[in-house]
Amino acid sequence: MEDFLLLDELLSDESKLMRESTREFINREVKPIIGDAFEKAQFPMELIQKIGEMGLLGCTLPEKYGGLDSNYMSYGIINQELERGDSGIRSFVSTQSSLCMFPIFSFGSEEQKKKYLPKLASAELIACFGLTEPDGGSDLTAMDTRAEKTTDGWIVNGTKSWSGNALFADLAVVWAQTEEGIRGFLIEKEFNGFQRIDLKKKMSLRASGTGVLVMENCFVPEENCLPHVKGTEGPRSCLNQAQYAVAWGVIGAAIDCYEMAVQYTTERKQFGKPIASFQLIQKDLSKMLTEITKAQLMNVRLGQLKDEGKDTPDMTSMAKMNACKEALAIARLSRNLLGANGISLEYPVIRHMINLESTLTSEGANNFHQLVLGEHITGFNALS
Amino acid sequence: MEDFLLLDELLSDESKLMRESTREFINREVKPIIGDAFEKAQFPMELIQKIGEMGLLGCTLPEKYGGLDSNYMSYGIINQELERGDSGIRSFVSTQSSLCMFPIFSFGSEEQKKKYLPKLASAELIACFGLTEPDGGSDLTAMDTRAEKTTDGWIVNGTKSWSGNALFADLAVVWAQTEEGIRGFLIEKEFNGFQRIDLKKKMSLRASGTGVLVMENCFVPEENCLPHVKGTEGPRSCLNQAQYAVAWGVIGAAIDCYEMAVQYTTERKQFGKPIASFQLIQKDLSKMLTEITKAQLMNVRLGQLKDEGKDTPDMTSMAKMNACKEALAIARLSRNLLGANGISLEYPVIRHMINLESTLTSEGANNFHQLVLGEHITGFNALS
Amino acid sequence: MEDFLLLDELLSDESKLMRESTREFINREVKPIIGDAFEKAQFPMELIQKIGEMGLLGCTLPEKYGGLDSNYMSYGIINQELERGDSGIRSFVSTQSSLCMFPIFSFGSEEQKKKYLPKLASAELIACFGLTEPDGGSDLTAMDTRAEKTTDGWIVNGTKSWSGNALFADLAVVWAQTEEGIRGFLIEKEFNGFQRIDLKKKMSLRASGTGVLVMENCFVPEENCLPHVKGTEGPRSCLNQAQYAVAWGVIGAAIDCYEMAVQYTTERKQFGKPIASFQLIQKDLSKMLTEITKAQLMNVRLGQLKDEGKDTPDMTSMAKMNACKEALAIARLSRNLLGANGISLEYPVIRHMINLESTLTSEGANNFHQLVLGEHITGFNALS
Amino acid sequence: MEDFLLLDELLSDESKLMRESTREFINREVKPIIGDAFEKAQFPMELIQKIGEMGLLGCTLPEKYGGLDSNYMSYGIINQELERGDSGIRSFVSTQSSLCMFPIFSFGSEEQKKKYLPKLASAELIACFGLTEPDGGSDLTAMDTRAEKTTDGWIVNGTKSWSGNALFADLAVVWAQTEEGIRGFLIEKEFNGFQRIDLKKKMSLRASGTGVLVMENCFVPEENCLPHVKGTEGPRSCLNQAQYAVAWGVIGAAIDCYEMAVQYTTERKQFGKPIASFQLIQKDLSKMLTEITKAQLMNVRLGQLKDEGKDTPDMTSMAKMNACKEALAIARLSRNLLGANGISLEYPVIRHMINLESTLTSEGANNFHQLVLGEHITGFNALS
Repeated sequence: MEDFLLLDELLSDESKLMRESTREFINREVKPIIGDAFEKAQFPMELIQKIGEMGLLGCTLPEKYGGLDSNYMSYGIINQELERGDSGIRSFVSTQSSLCMFPIFSFGSEEQKKKYLPKLASAELIACFGLTEPDGGSDLTAMDTRAEKTTDGWIVNGTKSWSGNALFADLAVVWAQTEEGIRGFLIEKEFNGFQRIDLKKKMSLRASGTGVLVMENCFVPEENCLPHVKGTEGPRSCLNQAQYAVAWGVIGAAIDCYEMAVQYTTERKQFGKPIASFQLIQKDLSKMLTEITKAQLMNVRLGQLKDEGKDTPDMTSMAKMNACKEALAIARLSRNLLGANGISLEYPVIRHMINLESTLTSEGANNFHQLVLGEHITGFNALS
Repeated sequence: MEDFLLLDELLSDESKLMRESTREFINREVKPIIGDAFEKAQFPMELIQKIGEMGLLGCTLPEKYGGLDSNYMSYGIINQELERGDSGIRSFVSTQSSLCMFPIFSFGSEEQKKKYLPKLASAELIACFGLTEPDGGSDLTAMDTRAEKTTDGWIVNGTKSWSGNALFADLAVVWAQTEEGIRGFLIEKEFNGFQRIDLKKKMSLRASGTGVLVMENCFVPEENCLPHVKGTEGPRSCLNQAQYAVAWGVIGAAIDCYEMAVQYTTERKQFGKPIASFQLIQKDLSKMLTEITKAQLMNVRLGQLKDEGKDTPDMTSMAKMNACKEALAIARLSRNLLGANGISLEYPVIRHMINLESTLTSEGANNFHQLVLGEHITGFNALS
Repeated sequence: MEDFLLLDELLSDESKLMRESTREFINREVKPIIGDAFEKAQFPMELIQKIGEMGLLGCTLPEKYGGLDSNYMSYGIINQELERGDSGIRSFVSTQSSLCMFPIFSFGSEEQKKKYLPKLASAELIACFGLTEPDGGSDLTAMDTRAEKTTDGWIVNGTKSWSGNALFADLAVVWAQTEEGIRGFLIEKEFNGFQRIDLKKKMSLRASGTGVLVMENCFVPEENCLPHVKGTEGPRSCLNQAQYAVAWGVIGAAIDCYEMAVQYTTERKQFGKPIASFQLIQKDLSKMLTEITKAQLMNVRLGQLKDEGKDTPDMTSMAKMNACKEALAIARLSRNLLGANGISLEYPVIRHMINLESTLTSEGANNFHQLVLGEHITGFNALS
Repeated sequence: MEDFLLLDELLSDESKLMRESTREFINREVKPIIGDAFEKAQFPMELIQKIGEMGLLGCTLPEKYGGLDSNYMSYGIINQELERGDSGIRSFVSTQSSLCMFPIFSFGSEEQKKKYLPKLASAELIACFGLTEPDGGSDLTAMDTRAEKTTDGWIVNGTKSWSGNALFADLAVVWAQTEEGIRGFLIEKEFNGFQRIDLKKKMSLRASGTGVLVMENCFVPEENCLPHVKGTEGPRSCLNQAQYAVAWGVIGAAIDCYEMAVQYTTERKQFGKPIASFQLIQKDLSKMLTEITKAQLMNVRLGQLKDEGKDTPDMTSMAKMNACKEALAIARLSRNLLGANGISLEYPVIRHMINLESTLTSEGANNFHQLVLGEHITGFNALS
């Protein structure tokens, strides 16, 4: 879509280059197959290798760990392009990058970094993230998963739900309550007592390998425990990273819905003229363009601040909350503009619309972020 | 759910009885299987026989044609209960009743009525409706399907899309342009040149046999042409009947979403208490109850007026538009209240939410009904 | 405006007669002068006598006390017609009727009833209501006004704000905390230690005599204390009565805004045609008509239930909340449709819009009623 | 309020300096008196001199014409600060600057510039703008005001309404239809046949000298006709300038409403705690902060693009439309959060809320801008 307020001028050439190559990949490899993958509820495994080769996994990490040393603006833009394809594809990348590689890089030992990061960057290894529990949600203090210290490691017990990539992951970054506070564990798929279960009957993010992680007396050696973080800060910082990716990503889905709506309404005729010439249609299109532009302004500004090291978690809360709310609203408008065709997977719109329901909920639902901002504004915690 | 404004007092015992038996049927036969049927995109054929036996098909018709002589209030309430189960089940009944049996009864010859109606009432025969065309929509004047008069019948050519029940129908009520204006044809499945095509990749109303009807030089004998209507009044009156059924039906889906949300939020705990005790949750629940109550008030009043013969098509426009808009809003709120579980088919909510997208579009999209009312108010036609 | 769903059929002849006479009074006496009264911030005192003569004050009370023995449906409809004129006029009547005559009738001694009610009905006496306090709101448990028992009466101290009719009232029904719970006091304007203060700088309900009541060691004889109620039930039941009047009243303001918008947009031309012929205008008009109709359906049903003695306070909460929210939304739409003229007092719209802000807040703000319903639904109190 | 996304970093020191001095002026000179001025419907004439001295009039013009050579970013920020005070004050400045000095500078002769601009900059002369007509609106093609060429000038006939500053203006920039297309005329108050009429009964922008301009055979000498523009481009470019000022200004009003709401809700207690600790309150505050931030991002970006000469009128359309819609929504939320106090002029909120109704309508109502964007997106004109 057009760059209404010329935001490209605020991007580096590198960012624009990464955007182009990602877009090209999405158009060529993802768009033709993703409707079917969604209907069949299968992640398109054949894409994994290519995504790794393109450097999309952990791209903000240093080159010595397999990253591209990219800035956050570029990471954001990659996510936008990926979710123009499908939220499941974006989720694959941001789970690996923000929820798994980020904590290993930030809180791991040098050995852990060397052992895992390069292979995660190249997609030789796939990782998933275990935080949310079946009865949980945004309340980290209520974590039921526990890790007990033994002589040379930990015994982990608990269940983690809604874990992206779980079904085909080689490694799980699992957070558990310990006597020292919450700690992070790198559980390899072969560990005894570790099991993945398919989350069937999922109607959203169908093209993704979401599953449940079950740890039953699962022994984790000490060298697989992240040494440099204790307490809620660990998972919180991961969520914050992921929220940034989601904020950018969902606007990609919104853009795809907007472009589809413009194309459809300018081609489709009723009463002898293109429906795009009717006022009620233009009102919706104009609202879409306005809100995409506003969300992009916020995402770009947040990217600048992250790259300058001046961002706060509350800023990301606002960007995530705003982008998810507006992207979903745009997808719903687009679904409606396509009329009966709006429910067919031959168009991307209903797929995006349904996917965006998940993004609204995950990484902190909108009610949660509203109250995070509310506390920021008023000083009062109204969450509990 | 509770009867907040005691609307039951406005219903006859017969209406309440039909509601109870339909509800019981839905709870026993539909709820346990419908999630799977939706995921597999299959209409549960095994229900057809029972639906016929219960008298739910064409119940407002006289007994001599297989009906129950029910009033419109009862017909409305049946639709509400059916869509508590699934929009696809309600659509099966209202397509057969409002879109097929109604025109045969209203515009058919005595022979046609005797031949088809009793079997349609008992579900020995299933019918579908052919009006909307692939490039069409609410603009009846742009109909491409044509019927040309021959000595002893008609040659019909054209394509009808989004036809509910099409895949397993024995009979199609097809509207075509003729030299005398639009006329209705009863096309049996064995007629030469008549074909049904599955509408694949449909993400909404998956538990229904929607398809495309193709007529290629399809010969229809004169006795299968509806004798008593010419012009747009024929299909319009069918749509009006169906809109009435939809207005009631979608509130059934909304009720199911509301009840699920109340149950979920009172059971689910966060920060040590049921989430239903939080203000932001109560706001949503209170909005749901209010809008369900308002829509029911309108539906009940419309039912009274229909039974008194005082309704106008504009009244049904308003009721359909209002109910679809509010039901979808309620389903979306409920989906959100269920958090991550809100995207699972183990709960009915996302299924209803996705189905309601179709009801918003079909039988006249909201933009269309807004402008119908707009013309009613202002005297100016802004549709074209 | 038109009676879209023929609700008149649900009204008695008496109700319709009272509506006609009230409407005629409003059109003749109120509409020509109310814009000026609003701008000057003066209640039109010359109307009081006539309002009394018409029997609009306390009309639901028995004839022996000066009432008309009207049913609640009629009382509702009167309020609707009054607020077509102005919220201040309606507020004058409903304050006198629901907040003052109602508690004297319900909780007063026979002497109190005989002494005050007939004169209040004839408008010889005007009353005001003292409940809300400057730092208060919907929280009755935090009442600062206190009454202390003496040998032959009570000493009342406290301040009551936002009291309608206060500036010209002869009598104030004041609620105060006592050792026995909240009790009601009939304070005459001549009582020592009782004082009224003008609430200046009010931008809403300007055509009304709202003021502050100050009681400083104000002695109230025992015979002026309402004998038959103790606790929050007293003021709550008054508020419930007033909410019923507001629910009906604000829809009257909405109707006036709707009628003005229809008239304006069908007469005003742009680009060579009436603006009512544009889709964006029709969308707004259609929304207005729909929501007025829905609110009236609810009000009429509530009236029926009140007249059958089957209503609950929660029902009135819903009706008040819904009517205020939708009436304000309609007024805002109308204000916008009138363009620049929408801000002129030569049209009634901006006056209604500003008045409706007060009704949204008074007698329980929308947040409050949402949580009242929320508790009804969930069983959890989220107010405090 | 806080600078949530650190937008100050994008401003020059000069811009920040101008903001501080304007803010200081507003806090000291405007806030204490503006409530009274609004209630009395009087523009505070005593401020004019100071506003001129501060350089706020035509600040973007070259110093040789009395300007400050400021950039557009600074001009935007000044408007934001002014409207924190009152829309009427901002309107005084932007009318003088964008609607009057701008066209003289852009389309005037050197003599006209020298004669008028320095005195307009210093506030020795006040100007008003005559474009909108009583039956007009956004449709420039329907202009009824006509100028007919005579030997040494023009005879102008027509009426212009809703003209800001009209009541005390020395000069009017009036647009009239001529044989050569629309042309601009500088009409001095002493010209024969020129008359100003007070627009009484205005409930919005009360603290401003809005009036009607009447030209009856008003002779305008040739040297008072703007030589360098013919056609709709003249007034359109003025409106575009004014829209930019409005986009910034209304967010100033929104900020004032937000700050008031935060202060009020953190101080006001109910049920024993500050109401800012309740979820429903925080939801509103969080929405306000988010939308202010988004609108500021858009305004800042537009300012950058204007200063780089890369802006288009459509960009300003979007910014004006967005800012007015969101500012009004914020003012309404704030009004509601202040409860009964929200209708008192002792707080700025209801004044802003009512003023913002005018800004929504003026300089192109939202429907208009939606369709401007709609044409930009689709290529179809749906305005007429």
